[in-house]
Amino acid sequence: MKKVLFATTALVFSAGIAAAEVSVGGDGRMGVVYNGDDWNFNSRIRVSFTASGTTDGGLEFGGSVRADQAIGATRGTEASVYISGAFGKLSMGDVVGAPEALFGDFYEVGYTDLDGRGGNDIGYLTADNGGNVDCASTAGLSACANTGPNLLYTGTFGAFSVAASMSDGKLNGATIGGLGVPVAVGNSTVAAALGTTETSVTQEYAIAGAYTFGNYTVGMGYEYSNGRNQLSGTDVDVDMVSLAGVGQFGNTSVKGVIAHRGQDADVDWYGIGASSVFGATTVGGYVQYMKDNNALAGTDDDVTWYGIGAEYDLGGGASIKGGIADNDNSDTDPIADLGVTFSF
Amino acid sequence: MKKVLFATTALVFSAGIAAAEVSVGGDGRMGVVYNGDDWNFNSRIRVSFTASGTTDGGLEFGGSVRADQAIGATRGTEASVYISGAFGKLSMGDVVGAPEALFGDFYEVGYTDLDGRGGNDIGYLTADNGGNVDCASTAGLSACANTGPNLLYTGTFGAFSVAASMSDGKLNGATIGGLGVPVAVGNSTVAAALGTTETSVTQEYAIAGAYTFGNYTVGMGYEYSNGRNQLSGTDVDVDMVSLAGVGQFGNTSVKGVIAHRGQDADVDWYGIGASSVFGATTVGGYVQYMKDNNALAGTDDDVTWYGIGAEYDLGGGASIKGGIADNDNSDTDPIADLGVTFSF
Amino acid sequence: MKKVLFATTALVFSAGIAAAEVSVGGDGRMGVVYNGDDWNFNSRIRVSFTASGTTDGGLEFGGSVRADQAIGATRGTEASVYISGAFGKLSMGDVVGAPEALFGDFYEVGYTDLDGRGGNDIGYLTADNGGNVDCASTAGLSACANTGPNLLYTGTFGAFSVAASMSDGKLNGATIGGLGVPVAVGNSTVAAALGTTETSVTQEYAIAGAYTFGNYTVGMGYEYSNGRNQLSGTDVDVDMVSLAGVGQFGNTSVKGVIAHRGQDADVDWYGIGASSVFGATTVGGYVQYMKDNNALAGTDDDVTWYGIGAEYDLGGGASIKGGIADNDNSDTDPIADLGVTFSF
Repeated sequence: MKKVLFATTALVFSAGIAAAEVSVGGDGRMGVVYNGDDWNFNSRIRVSFTASGTTDGGLEFGGSVRADQAIGATRGTEASVYISGAFGKLSMGDVVGAPEALFGDFYEVGYTDLDGRGGNDIGYLTADNGGNVDCASTAGLSACANTGPNLLYTGTFGAFSVAASMSDGKLNGATIGGLGVPVAVGNSTVAAALGTTETSVTQEYAIAGAYTFGNYTVGMGYEYSNGRNQLSGTDVDVDMVSLAGVGQFGNTSVKGVIAHRGQDADVDWYGIGASSVFGATTVGGYVQYMKDNNALAGTDDDVTWYGIGAEYDLGGGASIKGGIADNDNSDTDPIADLGVTFSF
Repeated sequence: MKKVLFATTALVFSAGIAAAEVSVGGDGRMGVVYNGDDWNFNSRIRVSFTASGTTDGGLEFGGSVRADQAIGATRGTEASVYISGAFGKLSMGDVVGAPEALFGDFYEVGYTDLDGRGGNDIGYLTADNGGNVDCASTAGLSACANTGPNLLYTGTFGAFSVAASMSDGKLNGATIGGLGVPVAVGNSTVAAALGTTETSVTQEYAIAGAYTFGNYTVGMGYEYSNGRNQLSGTDVDVDMVSLAGVGQFGNTSVKGVIAHRGQDADVDWYGIGASSVFGATTVGGYVQYMKDNNALAGTDDDVTWYGIGAEYDLGGGASIKGGIADNDNSDTDPIADLGVTFSF
Repeated sequence: MKKVLFATTALVFSAGIAAAEVSVGGDGRMGVVYNGDDWNFNSRIRVSFTASGTTDGGLEFGGSVRADQAIGATRGTEASVYISGAFGKLSMGDVVGAPEALFGDFYEVGYTDLDGRGGNDIGYLTADNGGNVDCASTAGLSACANTGPNLLYTGTFGAFSVAASMSDGKLNGATIGGLGVPVAVGNSTVAAALGTTETSVTQEYAIAGAYTFGNYTVGMGYEYSNGRNQLSGTDVDVDMVSLAGVGQFGNTSVKGVIAHRGQDADVDWYGIGASSVFGATTVGGYVQYMKDNNALAGTDDDVTWYGIGAEYDLGGGASIKGGIADNDNSDTDPIADLGVTFSF
């Protein structure tokens, strides 16, 4: 680029260009998916960038972004940055909430994730679970419940790991307005009043802790979300307590989570998942059960969903992977897939 | 990225990160274009990623995607992945149809392709010729005829090359609906019924073969496309037979293609192109003729279009390139361009 | 990618792939912003690609594009390409106008730029100052005033630097139509007539020169913009003369700019900015004043805005940076930010 002649502006950028760096990776997949009616082709390729550097004082910093999420990444969504040191790690952007940062999700079934019947994700209340979505590119209002960027702190001190996360409760440069349907989709209620240009969105906080002893880890998380019922204009408060445990038994890792959503919600939730590694082969699965105690009379108030899958490591970054998933709703059929995954 | 503490999920990604890699390249261009009325500036820059790896068993895999097509690439459009070995190569995504995989197109005229008067593309029936376009980002219904991803197999065995390709006939996550105009644009008819949320799109199959002897190669392709007339609701079947030959005469390469579209269509098509290399200079061009035997009385039922251009290799990845193109329609003027192209 | 068997097309791409290359970099930031009402989180990460090569004859060429601007970059907006040599440098795409190429803007205040109260940008008339925006992705008509790509020439000959720039006055593949509000937003009037599909947009020219002696540089620029009042259909001509000077006094760099917009406009404009470097610390700021002599009676015809900030270089590409900015309009409050910036 042409160097600007009167370069006071350029001082901003000249600081430490030499040290930090960006590495390029990605993933790909190809195969077939049965969606309950038909076998379809499904393929994709994604390129990801991982940036990292170190300050003179030894702090590490960086971030990561995928090429297909580059636009959202300029607004602090769909990607994140961090700074870390002895104090732990502080991340901002499209980060997970505190419990998910420590406990994760269950084994991912199938080469395409197969989340059409429930999926392996644990239904944490905050952050990117239906919340931290870019408003500007989303048609539905419900997806704007928490527009990000969010803040996440994680730290490990001996056998203890802690995490804390929060949203700023404000719209990220976008404006919600003109839609009048009351929405309480997923985990978050929506804060935008009908036809207004309100600038607040759902406010979220979460904390979590975990303790590891030998091959076992136990943890607990608490999440809180404050939004607004779009039609009545009243505040809606939901919180969630989750208990998680994981144990390593030889080649097998087992994870269990029990959770309850309270205040203006009343949902009980249980899930267990496991995966085992036999040489180049990994098999895994999960079962999750959820009961909505506030469900209207006459409607289904509970659902069980599950998935099971396997993969075989071909080496060099390629695996064959497949799975099947279903739930006990009467109007759905199992879904399945089989394909090859690539890691670059 | 913060390592998730309870990491059964992470097993999915840990397989073989070390071996596969992604290389970064791209292309650029700048110059002026005469569009029949005015000389305009035209420039662009594109970045492309090429990923590749090898399994422990010696299979090769990978894929490619451009930064500007990264979003579509996550749905299997606008980019592709592959796995290959002694059996040949299996690609999925935004791939070409079988005949195009073996025969290609004519010499590209001008630094901007100059396809406004017909262009150097050969009018194959299937795959990305007006078909494999991402529905979600396309206003017109006709572009959804085949939403991809498509599957392509190619293999070379001695003097013989073979190819086969197909679509899955299903929408790629998008829904067509609400538009009521019957569409039969380009090569593919459209499968979405008026006001419905039909999930099927045009089903395509194609095969092709080629035989090389000395400096000559001859080949033949067959393509079949089954869609639906949106207004009448009746099926529309079109197939296409193409004969191609190419010969290398000293510095000059000549390619000729004869094709016929039948069943519910009746179109004859002839094209010839050539390019010659003289040191750093390459000149090339094409003439194509198409006659629609089903055209309504009183309308033009045939068109001839042509283009001629030249380029000079400056070395290091830069070339000067220009061209002119036109057709024999009475209401169009020639278009032309002249510019510099870069390859990174 | 599968090599096309009949490969006359491939001749286009085989020229000089070896020499040119693409480097990957980027920037990130995280922190908090006070928008006059609330403190919000703000983070982002951007990846950028810089391509460069050299012809056999010693000309340099290349370009740059950010991942989040990759789509616009294929239309010559949001990125640029160049070719350079002893004659100077010729750039096309999303380039700045001639005066901005030589004089730049003032010190950027705050880690997020803080342009909500006026900002550090100098109000040049042409190119990307409200003009060179991609029509297709912009809701407002005014942003289509100059759709690019633009052409910029810069050259330095001893103590003299010169620059020249222009638009082609034509729409870049997009069509303006259907909007009927007369627009004269920012620096450029709009050329699209009501409900038409006019293909012309604002035509721009600019030249600039600068002379450096010791620690001082003085320069002058002239810009001309010809658009059309959308309602009256009459041409609107605006030009701008800007005088700029910069001096380096020890650790401190001071820049001053005086400008006047004439013909169908009558605006006077004064700005001064400075930045000082003390070891790892840089402080800087600006004050800008603008008076619209054509303002309607009873409305504010002038505004003063300013910003002041500081940053501390942590080394390795990371800095702490913050600032505050405001203007003297009665209905606005100061805005401020504080965060960490990363350069990769």
